[in-house]
Amino acid sequence: MEKKLAIGIDIGGTTTKFGIVDNSGHILEQDRIPTNEHEVASLFIEDLYAKLWPMILRHGQPENYIGIGVGAPNGNYYTGTIEYAPNLKWKGIIPMAKMLEEKFGLPARLTNDANAAAMGEMIYGCAKGKKHFITITLGTGVGSGIVIDGKIVLGHDGFAGELGHTIIRPGGRVHKGTGIKGSLEAYASATGVRETAIEFLTNEPNSDSLLRNFSIDDLTSQTVYECAIKGDKIANRIFEFTGQILGEALANFVMFSSPEVIVLFGGLTKAGDLILNPTIEAMEANLIKVFKNKVKVVFSNLKEADAAILGASALVWETA
Amino acid sequence: MEKKLAIGIDIGGTTTKFGIVDNSGHILEQDRIPTNEHEVASLFIEDLYAKLWPMILRHGQPENYIGIGVGAPNGNYYTGTIEYAPNLKWKGIIPMAKMLEEKFGLPARLTNDANAAAMGEMIYGCAKGKKHFITITLGTGVGSGIVIDGKIVLGHDGFAGELGHTIIRPGGRVHKGTGIKGSLEAYASATGVRETAIEFLTNEPNSDSLLRNFSIDDLTSQTVYECAIKGDKIANRIFEFTGQILGEALANFVMFSSPEVIVLFGGLTKAGDLILNPTIEAMEANLIKVFKNKVKVVFSNLKEADAAILGASALVWETA
Repeated sequence: MEKKLAIGIDIGGTTTKFGIVDNSGHILEQDRIPTNEHEVASLFIEDLYAKLWPMILRHGQPENYIGIGVGAPNGNYYTGTIEYAPNLKWKGIIPMAKMLEEKFGLPARLTNDANAAAMGEMIYGCAKGKKHFITITLGTGVGSGIVIDGKIVLGHDGFAGELGHTIIRPGGRVHKGTGIKGSLEAYASATGVRETAIEFLTNEPNSDSLLRNFSIDDLTSQTVYECAIKGDKIANRIFEFTGQILGEALANFVMFSSPEVIVLFGGLTKAGDLILNPTIEAMEANLIKVFKNKVKVVFSNLKEADAAILGASALVWETA
Repeated sequence: MEKKLAIGIDIGGTTTKFGIVDNSGHILEQDRIPTNEHEVASLFIEDLYAKLWPMILRHGQPENYIGIGVGAPNGNYYTGTIEYAPNLKWKGIIPMAKMLEEKFGLPARLTNDANAAAMGEMIYGCAKGKKHFITITLGTGVGSGIVIDGKIVLGHDGFAGELGHTIIRPGGRVHKGTGIKGSLEAYASATGVRETAIEFLTNEPNSDSLLRNFSIDDLTSQTVYECAIKGDKIANRIFEFTGQILGEALANFVMFSSPEVIVLFGGLTKAGDLILNPTIEAMEANLIKVFKNKVKVVFSNLKEADAAILGASALVWETA
């Protein structure tokens, strides 16, 4: 029987999204469940099975499915395990791929969520046909997927590609999750933009800003964006500052792997040129001659909800 | 006829070394010529031919040679060209591999000198049998070769792996060659150590130091080392400062490609533990949990003069 369908599962800190994907990259049906309802992963799999198994049967026989691809925080492609994910309730090392194989009777492949997104871009998105590129998720945190010679960079242990944790302001802002100072994620994430806003407003108590109309709790990258497009100077400077740091980091990544394109996605990209222009400017200013004006920096054109499911499903198409 | 010999050529900014290498990695004979005697590369090739051709014939017939491997600054593996090398007299793009093939009648492969060194480590040195590692040359400048899945990382254009130019002190010391501020090479090179020495001595005019016995022209990484092992405090702090910056940069590289080992070589490694200890300490302090206490940082065990020739020759064995 022809295997022409795949299942993509994106396990996020809050929500798990899943769907049926055909071999042209169309999502035939999708749904979601909360991720963190249970202390143990086996109960999560029960919840998932209750919704996903009927969905599988609505689109074919189990024999029509090539397998299950999963993107998960701290997911390890080599072992199929989720290891010490700080934002999940399940502790230690979870053999997620094996557990899914046993429950569903289908082969399962797992990688970290950022690598799954890179796979999605390579097969369905802006990096289609490209062999050397980097994807950067600018969301609550900063994730990354690196592709060299058409393959995801996994490193000797499966954990390569943690570019959000690289140091770009030594001795700088403390990252709350890791305790490390000056990492990219402490600045170029939604959380980082919020912190920058609080810092700027606190350090310049006499400056006018529309941002002062918001309570500290309501200061988000979204409110900074809304004030910036209304011409607010501090809000605009927050994006310039963020773009400067992101651009310097991108220059470092380019000098490592010389990618053809860098694909940005996630919440911060909603700021459009406000973030993109200073990012590109700072990147170019910090590149040596041989790399200047060569690397495209673009926003993903995949719908965010779809990208995660497509990327995860791409894991099993690749190994078909 | 059995092809059991290779020719390795290392084109350096001052000296070009070359030798005959057998298939067990022994250098049967080697010699050197100055690199920058002529404005045009064709005259350099005449000089090389005058010494290398008789050497080739002393060890066999041309048919016994598998080819010529070349390491050169700004060497591009994809095209076999040397492109705009700032420390060579020959301007523009030099089709070095093609020129050597025509002169010697043997196939030639070329890559940049740092990548050639990484090949040498993979085949003959500390990274033997390793599939994920990084080599860093701490010489007059800082070079690097990155190996992922057993292959040198070249990037989409052949220029990947310029880790010496990554930014580690944004807004910091200006790199004289590139004009970029705060790159690794501005600190963790022999030139950088000398500049740090001058800065420390200037900023602390009242401090005692054996380094004050040297004229500014005689302040080198070597004299700093000699004072440090005599217990000089400023000299020791210079290596701690250098190691701190190098270690932070290594942490960034680990979070990119998750290598099993990082191999350091070049002049600065003569400082031994004075540079290695603070480097490892700073690297570990800046790694997220999943990478901690996993990555070995070691000095190369290849003789420096041999490493360059072996690495270059490895280029042609690899494609055999």
